[in-house]
Amino acid sequence: MNFPSKLIEDAVTEISRLPGIGKKTALRLTLHLLKQKEPVTISLTEALLKLRTDIRYCAICHNVSDSDTCSICEGNKRDKSLICVVEDLPDLLAIENTNQYTGLYHVLGGVISPIQGIGPEEINIESLLKRIENPPSGQAVTEVILALPGTMEGDTTSFYITRKLQEKAVNVSTIARGIPVGGELEYTDEVTLGRSILTRIKYSAE
Amino acid sequence: MNFPSKLIEDAVTEISRLPGIGKKTALRLTLHLLKQKEPVTISLTEALLKLRTDIRYCAICHNVSDSDTCSICEGNKRDKSLICVVEDLPDLLAIENTNQYTGLYHVLGGVISPIQGIGPEEINIESLLKRIENPPSGQAVTEVILALPGTMEGDTTSFYITRKLQEKAVNVSTIARGIPVGGELEYTDEVTLGRSILTRIKYSAE
Repeated sequence: MNFPSKLIEDAVTEISRLPGIGKKTALRLTLHLLKQKEPVTISLTEALLKLRTDIRYCAICHNVSDSDTCSICEGNKRDKSLICVVEDLPDLLAIENTNQYTGLYHVLGGVISPIQGIGPEEINIESLLKRIENPPSGQAVTEVILALPGTMEGDTTSFYITRKLQEKAVNVSTIARGIPVGGELEYTDEVTLGRSILTRIKYSAE
Repeated sequence: MNFPSKLIEDAVTEISRLPGIGKKTALRLTLHLLKQKEPVTISLTEALLKLRTDIRYCAICHNVSDSDTCSICEGNKRDKSLICVVEDLPDLLAIENTNQYTGLYHVLGGVISPIQGIGPEEINIESLLKRIENPPSGQAVTEVILALPGTMEGDTTSFYITRKLQEKAVNVSTIARGIPVGGELEYTDEVTLGRSILTRIKYSAE
């Protein structure tokens, strides 16, 4: 693609570096910004720069935060006896947006992956063990929910954390794996279907 | 959607103002930028700001430009006897990327639309007439190709320009409308199909 201006070319190149945005979309966005008044571009770039330079991470759970500790760890309505362990921020946001969970989180920042050279020391496991031992809120943690990806690396990490927590007086659980709500049995992969039978939930007879 | 940080919320709000980008995509892009090192965000925002503040428009054809006149008007290999009139920048870029046209352009910056209050004075028609009368390159313009949208407004503008050019010693043509290459006849709308029969192209018998 040829561009009539180096400025446009640079903008298109930069925008198309973003995931899922190709040259055509980048050009469309560039021309859109060019059509808008200057303040539109200025407020967009300011928000992005401010995000990148001012963002902080919660000292307790490693969630993004505007201050030293995040709004979840500080929240009065959160159940501080529960900690949900997630791989990264998108997972935390996804769980938050279900409005089903009121406990705390712990963001690992990755999962154990020997192939990529990521060991237990590279991710935030040590700080998880510490906060269970000495809860910053003063309230004892009774359950750790592992909400890690259903991959080999996720399972390895879950296994590692479970073993580390055996020494502590805390229950460990993992999120249920099975057929998605509304999902068809015949189109579900065998591993998921197999697991969903093994980990079946009993209807109470009482 | 709830966000754990005002900075993330602001970035998502700004990004989702772009056309075709919803909150979910905006969040994905925001988290992506957060994962990357700071220079990635800085070079993106710099390119956008520089584009918006430094961009200039060609004094001859109103194309975007890095200097007073654009690279097309300045180009040695361009046929300066041809001017292709387009509504706006994306159309110019689309024609350029066909690699089929080597003449000059004239960007109107819109089309005549009485409903939206856009008259002939609001768009760059006067400068078109002037450059035909006094070609900045010194070479006489022999043909003006109208490449305007096939809408009522586009047709009105084409008609207006054609009438204005009747007084000048210049040929006027319009881009062909018809079935797209590879298009199926049965799925083409009646107006296009009807026009394509009326404006049929004769195979030379010679």
